[in-house]
Amino acid sequence: MFEFTFQFDTENHQHLYEQIYIYIKNEIREGKLPRGEKLPSSRALAEYLQVSRSTVCLAYEQLLSEGYVETKPYKGYYVCEISELQKMKIGKEKTSEPVYCAEKNDMENADEDAAYIDFSPNAVDMRYFPFDTWRRTSKNVLMDDKSELFSMGHPQGEWKLRNTIVNYLHQSRGVVCRPEQIMIGAGNDYLLMLLGQMFENDTIVAMEDPTYLRAYRMFSAFGWQVETIGMDEAGMKVEEIYQTKASLAYAMPSHQFPIGTVMPIGRRMELIKWAKQAKERYIIEDDYDSEFRFKGKPIPALAANDAEKVIYIGSFSKSVAPAIRVSFMVLPEKLLPLYQKKCGYLACTVSRVDQMILQEFIDSGSFARYLNKMRKRYKEKHDLLLTELKAFQPYYDIRGTEAGLHILISSKTGLPEKKLVELAKREGVKVYALSQNCRERNMAHDNTVLLGFGKLTEEEIKLGIGALKRAWLL
Amino acid sequence: MFEFTFQFDTENHQHLYEQIYIYIKNEIREGKLPRGEKLPSSRALAEYLQVSRSTVCLAYEQLLSEGYVETKPYKGYYVCEISELQKMKIGKEKTSEPVYCAEKNDMENADEDAAYIDFSPNAVDMRYFPFDTWRRTSKNVLMDDKSELFSMGHPQGEWKLRNTIVNYLHQSRGVVCRPEQIMIGAGNDYLLMLLGQMFENDTIVAMEDPTYLRAYRMFSAFGWQVETIGMDEAGMKVEEIYQTKASLAYAMPSHQFPIGTVMPIGRRMELIKWAKQAKERYIIEDDYDSEFRFKGKPIPALAANDAEKVIYIGSFSKSVAPAIRVSFMVLPEKLLPLYQKKCGYLACTVSRVDQMILQEFIDSGSFARYLNKMRKRYKEKHDLLLTELKAFQPYYDIRGTEAGLHILISSKTGLPEKKLVELAKREGVKVYALSQNCRERNMAHDNTVLLGFGKLTEEEIKLGIGALKRAWLL
Repeated sequence: MFEFTFQFDTENHQHLYEQIYIYIKNEIREGKLPRGEKLPSSRALAEYLQVSRSTVCLAYEQLLSEGYVETKPYKGYYVCEISELQKMKIGKEKTSEPVYCAEKNDMENADEDAAYIDFSPNAVDMRYFPFDTWRRTSKNVLMDDKSELFSMGHPQGEWKLRNTIVNYLHQSRGVVCRPEQIMIGAGNDYLLMLLGQMFENDTIVAMEDPTYLRAYRMFSAFGWQVETIGMDEAGMKVEEIYQTKASLAYAMPSHQFPIGTVMPIGRRMELIKWAKQAKERYIIEDDYDSEFRFKGKPIPALAANDAEKVIYIGSFSKSVAPAIRVSFMVLPEKLLPLYQKKCGYLACTVSRVDQMILQEFIDSGSFARYLNKMRKRYKEKHDLLLTELKAFQPYYDIRGTEAGLHILISSKTGLPEKKLVELAKREGVKVYALSQNCRERNMAHDNTVLLGFGKLTEEEIKLGIGALKRAWLL
Repeated sequence: MFEFTFQFDTENHQHLYEQIYIYIKNEIREGKLPRGEKLPSSRALAEYLQVSRSTVCLAYEQLLSEGYVETKPYKGYYVCEISELQKMKIGKEKTSEPVYCAEKNDMENADEDAAYIDFSPNAVDMRYFPFDTWRRTSKNVLMDDKSELFSMGHPQGEWKLRNTIVNYLHQSRGVVCRPEQIMIGAGNDYLLMLLGQMFENDTIVAMEDPTYLRAYRMFSAFGWQVETIGMDEAGMKVEEIYQTKASLAYAMPSHQFPIGTVMPIGRRMELIKWAKQAKERYIIEDDYDSEFRFKGKPIPALAANDAEKVIYIGSFSKSVAPAIRVSFMVLPEKLLPLYQKKCGYLACTVSRVDQMILQEFIDSGSFARYLNKMRKRYKEKHDLLLTELKAFQPYYDIRGTEAGLHILISSKTGLPEKKLVELAKREGVKVYALSQNCRERNMAHDNTVLLGFGKLTEEEIKLGIGALKRAWLL
């Protein structure tokens, strides 16, 4: 074990883990801790410093995330090799890059200093991803060195992948459609941009509040007028849409973001009834994470109830991987001529190779296997989170637990969300204020934060909730 | 040789090659020509039928493009294997799919019946693409099974790829910029959509006429007002922009599409002067195929003349492959806060894996080697095309020959473009009317068509121009 000449600064406002982290970081930077050197185990260092093991873990995690140390399986933490550190120095400007986050998130308010346990509602767990299968599939696709793979493909996406999606949608979401109705695009936001091209600039769209803020911003950028619609426990209050001149309604019936409401069949029918009352009315269904449902039976998509009035948007960002950038849209038959006219000239934004890899991945059954595994994994995390949160029940309301990769927690004692976020941050935990997703500041949400569990390990969930207990209950 | 019981129908209005094609197709469909059977060589069949060899070639090409026959290198044409034909039957609906074309093209007027020699101004030659290198690079990138590759990347694109593009732009286009100014996106159209988000809906944009029609359509879809600017031999007439209230000017100084003008330095300076006269003015430089220049020295991009006033858009669609869907935009420093505000929340549309493969492909020098090879190949085709076109000179003007993968040919005798297209089609050749790219019908262009040579072999260029001689000169 290296010489650990370390003294906690009790006058210091920094957390213990922060002091440990800064000390080790400086030792590495100054070369006192040589490259390749093994760090003491968290248990040993915790004993030595007389702090809890989780404090040391947090310090190590931070060093790891910043690239100072690396882990070797079954061995422990090691100071990174010279080449890695040099790369860091060369790429130094990189640290001046803005912080970025995953899908369905508002990233402008992201903290500069990364949290150590991050309950991001958008992150997913990639540890179980079948990289070998994906790699093999990629290799096979590229094996046929047909140059056509590199020439321009169909603007709506590869026919085979669209066929595969037709089958998937039918089996998993109850949606019946033809490949001609499907448009493949690089992410949901891009598909929304296509809708921006299709509908006039003076379109009026109804959205819940709070809603997916990125969609709200994009609609505004198209010049569309957004009408805010209230929500109750069944979701969007359809009677309020009638009081507007909206021709489009944007909804997430399977799992509203951020509230987590699952829209019951009665409300769905009301929504469809509204759309049916005028030719130009359509519902945009954003089905962003419907794959993960933890209570009751699977509920078909809204598009399964009415194929003529629902524009369905689905994504493989949560179910496969955020970085593969493949989403798809199903347009009602009646909108196809409009699509052809307004967007038919646009090339597909996803490469043909990527489309073929995904198609093979789905057709071979690997996708279904992976999805089943992840459903179990996420269910375990979800259940663990709820168990750990039991201690909060007297003082906090917990909602949005039926589906998806995040839940909501609200202070019954009136602690404002800002305070909740701040207290958590002091304990090294990042939680997300609900108001970041509200267009109009709504006091009813002012005491609520989002806890996402997708990416966290069970260990991290326990550590994180432990820290939140210290932050919010003591 | 199989029994070829074939009689030309002289009463028939079909071309000879069409009759041959239909006869063989039916023989295959009815099983009379068994799977795997070798077709007679084009020379032998031409002799047997007493037609020109090119007639047989056209028939074979058509069978090939429809998947009835396949070629085996150094062996000839064979009837496709059963499995392939069965696939065709299963995928029958596929034939009802709309015809689609490549970049920089207007596809709504695409013919239902594919032409046999297609002078598409957008197609590129993929026969020399280093598939092995690309495959190896893909494999290497996927080898490091870092799950981070599949988690969300930076919204502007991978730092390393942006660095690589900075170097490429500096060396090849004289543009000096920082990686922070670069946005990577899935195709030029997507990058234009980002500009649509950044600038207000009442923006006024100046465009040449004729211009890249897709950009025109997109700008209109954003609600922007498009001011049409005339062109002379130096390109956009800058004095006309002053007569408008435009704050943006869209131009292709390196190689105007479709006219092919290369903007000289004097005009470039005028354009920049216009932009400099007001804070909110910017030039959008679409540098879509600047890699291929056949006369004189390379000319730096307009963004190299003024980094503060030029929004630069570049693409790897022509230089690497149309289907990789990677383009990039360089924003002036002053526009970065606006970008962050209006688009900073949007995720990058290109997958991280694809970005890393491309970066490796460039950094390893493979890109530069491939580009050099293609410059030579395209130059050979370009020179051959011009040689073959010499016979047209008394009656036709030939323009736009300095750069890019297409030239323009105009009838001096007043043959309208519609007639030119039609006459060519009768001879089995597809050429592209210039007016398809004109916003306002301008009579000056009414006798001009585009001939693209990117994808054609030297053999096909000779065959095609031979057919055009029959169509336009006889």
